[in-house]
Amino acid sequence: MNTNTSPLTQKLSAFVALAEAELAVLEQLHQRRRTFEAGRDLVHQGQSEQAAYILAAGWVVSYKLQPDGSRQIVDFQIPGDFLGLRSVLLHTSDHGIEPIVDIEAAEVLVSDLLQAFAETPRLATAILWAVSRDEAMVVEHLVGLGRRDADARMAHFLLELGVRLSLVGMGSKKGYACPLTQYHLADALGLSAIHVNRVLRKLREDELVTFRDGFVTFNNYEGLVKLADFDPAYLDQKRPILA
Amino acid sequence: MNTNTSPLTQKLSAFVALAEAELAVLEQLHQRRRTFEAGRDLVHQGQSEQAAYILAAGWVVSYKLQPDGSRQIVDFQIPGDFLGLRSVLLHTSDHGIEPIVDIEAAEVLVSDLLQAFAETPRLATAILWAVSRDEAMVVEHLVGLGRRDADARMAHFLLELGVRLSLVGMGSKKGYACPLTQYHLADALGLSAIHVNRVLRKLREDELVTFRDGFVTFNNYEGLVKLADFDPAYLDQKRPILA
Repeated sequence: MNTNTSPLTQKLSAFVALAEAELAVLEQLHQRRRTFEAGRDLVHQGQSEQAAYILAAGWVVSYKLQPDGSRQIVDFQIPGDFLGLRSVLLHTSDHGIEPIVDIEAAEVLVSDLLQAFAETPRLATAILWAVSRDEAMVVEHLVGLGRRDADARMAHFLLELGVRLSLVGMGSKKGYACPLTQYHLADALGLSAIHVNRVLRKLREDELVTFRDGFVTFNNYEGLVKLADFDPAYLDQKRPILA
Repeated sequence: MNTNTSPLTQKLSAFVALAEAELAVLEQLHQRRRTFEAGRDLVHQGQSEQAAYILAAGWVVSYKLQPDGSRQIVDFQIPGDFLGLRSVLLHTSDHGIEPIVDIEAAEVLVSDLLQAFAETPRLATAILWAVSRDEAMVVEHLVGLGRRDADARMAHFLLELGVRLSLVGMGSKKGYACPLTQYHLADALGLSAIHVNRVLRKLREDELVTFRDGFVTFNNYEGLVKLADFDPAYLDQKRPILA
């Protein structure tokens, strides 16, 4: 893999025009590559002194354990996203992180971040942008939770993933490959698996979107945007702010 | 006001032991002080090219406008918090920001941040910590929304505010001054004003907490923690990580 076009580099390029110096520092951050198996936690909730990771390939789920032992999915991470950046900065991880498929990720310690930031403050600002964008997504989910019905919630979710994936070259307005199961969707959207099944069938029959055999296909992108009342401004990937 | 003990300095000290160099840079960031009147938006949702602010005194509410024109409160900011840091990094603000009382805040531009980070990467990491902590709070609210009943939600909210305020010397396990109205509480917790009134009366009658005349008084802190199932680990303010 060429780090110059790593997913993180592609993503941060939406915020800052990266110079040679910054690209070199990003390459440094990708040095300690590791692979992790699907289904085995990278980070346990409550674990301390763990590393953060930059996801290079594969999909990951972040979740909170409930007092009754059930899992509440907070979000999914895709290539270019940080895994557990919050966890490495906070004393103990406030959530668990599990690969959905086999993944490739680069280990990053707080000392690596300090060194990278010392070499290029623009990169620090770019990473602050990425974290702010992650927060904007959680806020959007929070506000949407009570407001959207099941159809709109599913539509919004599939559209948001598509926009995020397109930033790292893994999706378009036609669709994208997606390894999530109906159980993941149910957990993330607060619906039962049966309800998810029914909503997906309805969206397919209305010729808006089809999720089948690991692929999300947008049949009518604008129609889906209208149903979800989807405004992608919070994903903020139109053009770099810092030239 | 001595910036060496500004609320932001006090807050960041929970993450990083600040040296003279960092204290000086923090002082620089506080240069452009301004006051803002209660009730007049600092930042409008959808506004672009605005500044960020460091709140030095007073309380602020962050909200999202709904398509039907109603407001959904996302969070409250207290002294030491950034206002609109996400907004200054994203192209357009994804939320509005309104002072609840007259406030004092220092204006911060992206160029100020770049300069500060260039001078001290430790400060960049500390601010990344603060943003991560803000995100952890939103995640906690998201996960809690469906899980806690009205009593537990109110208890959790009042406890979280108390822990945040204690970090900047404005609260303790005895209580704190609080300018929020029952309408703020209702909006933030997704309850009606009448329901808020009923919940507060019940918590007072159970001798757990009293919110009256602008003061929150914890009558039985441990009892309230138990009711809310409150674990403050996500607020992460036990001791600095970076020595």
